[in-house]
Amino acid sequence: MLSFENDYSEGAHPAILERIAKANMDQYPGYGSDAICESAKAKIREACGDADAEVFFLVGGTQTNQVVIDSMLSEVEGVVAVDTGHVNVHEAGAIEATGHKVLTLPAHDGKMDAGELDAYCAAFMADGNRDHMVWPGMVYVSHPTEYGTLYTKAELGALHAVCGKYGIPLFVDGARLGYGLTARGADVTMADLARLADVFYVGGTKVGALMGEAVVFTHRNMPRHFLTIVKRHGALLAKGFLLGIQFDTLFTDGLYTAIARHANEQADRIREALTAKGYVMPLVNTTNQIFVTLSDERYRELTAKVRLGFWEKPDAEHTTVRIATSWATTDEHVDELIALL
Amino acid sequence: MLSFENDYSEGAHPAILERIAKANMDQYPGYGSDAICESAKAKIREACGDADAEVFFLVGGTQTNQVVIDSMLSEVEGVVAVDTGHVNVHEAGAIEATGHKVLTLPAHDGKMDAGELDAYCAAFMADGNRDHMVWPGMVYVSHPTEYGTLYTKAELGALHAVCGKYGIPLFVDGARLGYGLTARGADVTMADLARLADVFYVGGTKVGALMGEAVVFTHRNMPRHFLTIVKRHGALLAKGFLLGIQFDTLFTDGLYTAIARHANEQADRIREALTAKGYVMPLVNTTNQIFVTLSDERYRELTAKVRLGFWEKPDAEHTTVRIATSWATTDEHVDELIALL
Amino acid sequence: MLSFENDYSEGAHPAILERIAKANMDQYPGYGSDAICESAKAKIREACGDADAEVFFLVGGTQTNQVVIDSMLSEVEGVVAVDTGHVNVHEAGAIEATGHKVLTLPAHDGKMDAGELDAYCAAFMADGNRDHMVWPGMVYVSHPTEYGTLYTKAELGALHAVCGKYGIPLFVDGARLGYGLTARGADVTMADLARLADVFYVGGTKVGALMGEAVVFTHRNMPRHFLTIVKRHGALLAKGFLLGIQFDTLFTDGLYTAIARHANEQADRIREALTAKGYVMPLVNTTNQIFVTLSDERYRELTAKVRLGFWEKPDAEHTTVRIATSWATTDEHVDELIALL
Amino acid sequence: MLSFENDYSEGAHPAILERIAKANMDQYPGYGSDAICESAKAKIREACGDADAEVFFLVGGTQTNQVVIDSMLSEVEGVVAVDTGHVNVHEAGAIEATGHKVLTLPAHDGKMDAGELDAYCAAFMADGNRDHMVWPGMVYVSHPTEYGTLYTKAELGALHAVCGKYGIPLFVDGARLGYGLTARGADVTMADLARLADVFYVGGTKVGALMGEAVVFTHRNMPRHFLTIVKRHGALLAKGFLLGIQFDTLFTDGLYTAIARHANEQADRIREALTAKGYVMPLVNTTNQIFVTLSDERYRELTAKVRLGFWEKPDAEHTTVRIATSWATTDEHVDELIALL
Repeated sequence: MLSFENDYSEGAHPAILERIAKANMDQYPGYGSDAICESAKAKIREACGDADAEVFFLVGGTQTNQVVIDSMLSEVEGVVAVDTGHVNVHEAGAIEATGHKVLTLPAHDGKMDAGELDAYCAAFMADGNRDHMVWPGMVYVSHPTEYGTLYTKAELGALHAVCGKYGIPLFVDGARLGYGLTARGADVTMADLARLADVFYVGGTKVGALMGEAVVFTHRNMPRHFLTIVKRHGALLAKGFLLGIQFDTLFTDGLYTAIARHANEQADRIREALTAKGYVMPLVNTTNQIFVTLSDERYRELTAKVRLGFWEKPDAEHTTVRIATSWATTDEHVDELIALL
Repeated sequence: MLSFENDYSEGAHPAILERIAKANMDQYPGYGSDAICESAKAKIREACGDADAEVFFLVGGTQTNQVVIDSMLSEVEGVVAVDTGHVNVHEAGAIEATGHKVLTLPAHDGKMDAGELDAYCAAFMADGNRDHMVWPGMVYVSHPTEYGTLYTKAELGALHAVCGKYGIPLFVDGARLGYGLTARGADVTMADLARLADVFYVGGTKVGALMGEAVVFTHRNMPRHFLTIVKRHGALLAKGFLLGIQFDTLFTDGLYTAIARHANEQADRIREALTAKGYVMPLVNTTNQIFVTLSDERYRELTAKVRLGFWEKPDAEHTTVRIATSWATTDEHVDELIALL
Repeated sequence: MLSFENDYSEGAHPAILERIAKANMDQYPGYGSDAICESAKAKIREACGDADAEVFFLVGGTQTNQVVIDSMLSEVEGVVAVDTGHVNVHEAGAIEATGHKVLTLPAHDGKMDAGELDAYCAAFMADGNRDHMVWPGMVYVSHPTEYGTLYTKAELGALHAVCGKYGIPLFVDGARLGYGLTARGADVTMADLARLADVFYVGGTKVGALMGEAVVFTHRNMPRHFLTIVKRHGALLAKGFLLGIQFDTLFTDGLYTAIARHANEQADRIREALTAKGYVMPLVNTTNQIFVTLSDERYRELTAKVRLGFWEKPDAEHTTVRIATSWATTDEHVDELIALL
Repeated sequence: MLSFENDYSEGAHPAILERIAKANMDQYPGYGSDAICESAKAKIREACGDADAEVFFLVGGTQTNQVVIDSMLSEVEGVVAVDTGHVNVHEAGAIEATGHKVLTLPAHDGKMDAGELDAYCAAFMADGNRDHMVWPGMVYVSHPTEYGTLYTKAELGALHAVCGKYGIPLFVDGARLGYGLTARGADVTMADLARLADVFYVGGTKVGALMGEAVVFTHRNMPRHFLTIVKRHGALLAKGFLLGIQFDTLFTDGLYTAIARHANEQADRIREALTAKGYVMPLVNTTNQIFVTLSDERYRELTAKVRLGFWEKPDAEHTTVRIATSWATTDEHVDELIALL
């Protein structure tokens, strides 16, 4: 059955598979201490325009959020996120499992408001009981957000400024970063991220790789003994070179952005068709995720023919679904979906 | 300077100190395995009307919340509390430190609404992504609440019913239980708690003891190897008999309720004076904590003469304070305070 | 440079890469809830001769040890391992990171002695202070061990009996299981493991897969909500089907054992050459890892030409190295190594 | 029944109880932020001859070990202790519960050897696999040790030097410090500790207080936000002034050392009697704990008349017991015990 359920339904971009196959019998040292990883890191640093950036490859998104947040917070600190944030809702308590609280602010189309963050931090610092409370020690946002929306450069700059004011790092979850960098109207580049975020990651799993996320520390702030920290979390891949090969391929000849742009364009086609047919989309975005609210009857009819992502039930008679395109979405698949709508 | 800052400003009820002094050179085995602890437990069981209740003495409130919640939750579960709950705000992340998330519902004058709890659990069970989420594994309420308000027996019964429906235990934080049992209009007894809660505790620290909280497991559900669990949390008192002596005294001849009633009556006198003088109290309660909103100028004047608890700043020009009475509050102190108002 | 440093230097067995490439554009649901994973699990159950076994795929070895141990121990329990065990020495504290102690027994050529385990457990149960101690809650052994040695069926049966006597599960780390199943003189089969261990895993990373470990729970004892537990550890792979494809391939037409046997045979050739040339091997084994003690001078000469695994320095003038073969070791590589010896 | 089971069988030194009773109705701010705590801290600083020492009061020994170790270690570090150390054996895994491994060295009459520590750290730093291992991040010793033995100033100086060499702090558990400071032949003073240890604590629970341990950070190295860290561990006492009152009393007019010296002298009388009567003491010490090995028959006879601490079974026919004196041990009790021997 045709699927638009998510952006991790298929294997990897063919160029990646070819490269893995070609290197298959080469011998690499373990745990990412190899030349391909170094090459991939250099290319990512170049894409960031930041020669000093420190890069580390991990396997998956929740794992990356857990390791980065745990390693950068002190014992008394929690991470500030919007209430709809992935770390707050859909990671099965992986952050709390490392002993840290997720402190929440309201989401606005999935985004954090810099003014609200400032007010939160100011109120905390003014609270006479703050020594009995969890200190805000990091700000977590995702770009694109859980709702496929994007921060503008100005919004990200405002978050950066508030973080600077309180001396806490800004962490940008880029599990779907490619789709965010290449969306219509997007004005945030990797260089902007390298400047405005203290740490962010370049998602591979959902943007053409078999698996892999490239964490980028932008201010010489990679925690000491980071490899050991990763190992302690059970997150160190023995065949680390596999991650290096994949990111090296993605960051050669612009493949990463090219395949993400393709997904956004396919999503745009679907968005146009949905609009033309009068479907209700609870929010507007320009990346590879589309949210549509359907009557439960229409939901049943449609999902009998195409796999869509269940998102939530806004009321007793309706269901909101997610339609996700990816690097792997073909014109034919989109045509087929539009015909079903 | 006179203080109404909290209900743990003084030592212990004189009867407790006398009893400790009298037993001072007796020799007890360690860690609560002594006859006085057994006697105190028997008296608490009797006060609960529950011959099967299992009782364990701990030292402080946050410690008790941490140990009970951690020991009763499975690895994938979190505890549901209202957003203003002590475990969510004022325990410096002690729950998350044990790896568990605090899942929040809105507070209504400090209380959890059974209907909202039911809706939350129902939505969770219906969520297609629930395997990626923290499971609600326990419900935490405090009685009295952080705002000195009380559940009615009907409200507690409703929470009990919802917990039963989803098979999760109901935990009642009774750090100030005495004040709740004896307040004007209160209809919840210790026997009700033993019936409606799966675990609760009888606060000593804030109700006349030097320190100590008596945890009561009401359904033969004390976690296995509980003493070892307590030790592992660094929470096992070497001279456990000190806790036994104190609770044995508090539960002899109704001392526990007598001293709590006294505090509530002193609070009533203050409430009357506040009302007569036109002060603004953001919520109505009948226990030993009173919340008053003052202009910042009045706040500065008053706190130059009497120590009050800072609570929060509702806006830029006002401050809300807490006035707390206790077993130790004298008529003279109350007269003095009223004269200052 | 030629490498015998470890058994995870190359990509994957060509049959696996071909299968991944072939399935690349197929669409699978996420997180291992797909038909290929089901097929692979069925084949593993068949190889175990245990129709009831529950199988779950994870990514790496330390991760698997961490998740399995954490999920099967209660709060007061630790895991018993030999002092040279991987979980005790080379996982950067991943077990302790989840709150559990590793309780150690002496290793005998890397193996645990059932009699010593029995004595340890008996002494613990007889200890008057045991409530202040970490309870032995699981036994961890690896097969092959860290030193490439193997348990006999009788030895494993003895461990199983002691575990049964004290009611604690036996966990067998099979990161290199294939090499253990197919070694000269080995008498333990997968069916034996399914009968004698309560949980074990079939290593993929070091036996021909890109990555992946197949955990097998043999007594209907997979912890409840195991997928959520895995997610909470940051260990749930989005493209779970990749693990399914790999294990389905490994367990088709005996590939798993065939490629492991090949590695053992290559190791045998090296062992023969070492013996013939008078090298000192501190212990005897028949699997894919060989340990050789060299003078530091010889060590420097040799490692200038071939990459070997540093193991330890037994004294100031010598170095012990590990020579590892794998599914990927060619005749030519072995010839080349032997020529260098 | 007469008890020499431990040194925490009775309440508190009468001077402490009197002082608590006298201050009972005074009003103190919460959590140790009061003037009596300040006074007690000043007296401890004076006893240390260290005007810059930072002091914090906690309730119990395991709690103190847990909080200090967890707060001073980084994520990748463990604490080095001897295998018989309290943190390794008798704290129910409280250290591991905070995510840190206890790394062990052999004990020599309960003590750590500086040369072995040096060798351990040197081997770790030279290990090619150290990034996959737990880093030694602190050294824990107790003075007196679990076996009532004492470090000489030279031995402590040697440990201090090794710690300095590797840049890791030395932590001295002084749960029974008073007995160590005043034992025959002891040459370590509080000033020595303040100079040689980076952090240590002055035990109150076992040396005359109801409860309480005074942690002393000697190099301006109290972890930032330490009160919040303590709260997060559930270890912050609401009525912190109770700890201040007790330590202020203990450090007035030399009470702390006077009562400890008394206990040592009582122990000396018992040691003399044991020697005279030919009892076997497996080790020699001069503090308040005596270890005696008895035939099991003698053990049964004796413990029918006097409570002694079970220590261990050295073989199938013997039992080793601990006889502990304390500040509360009277001449009559000692006479009575000697008569029974």
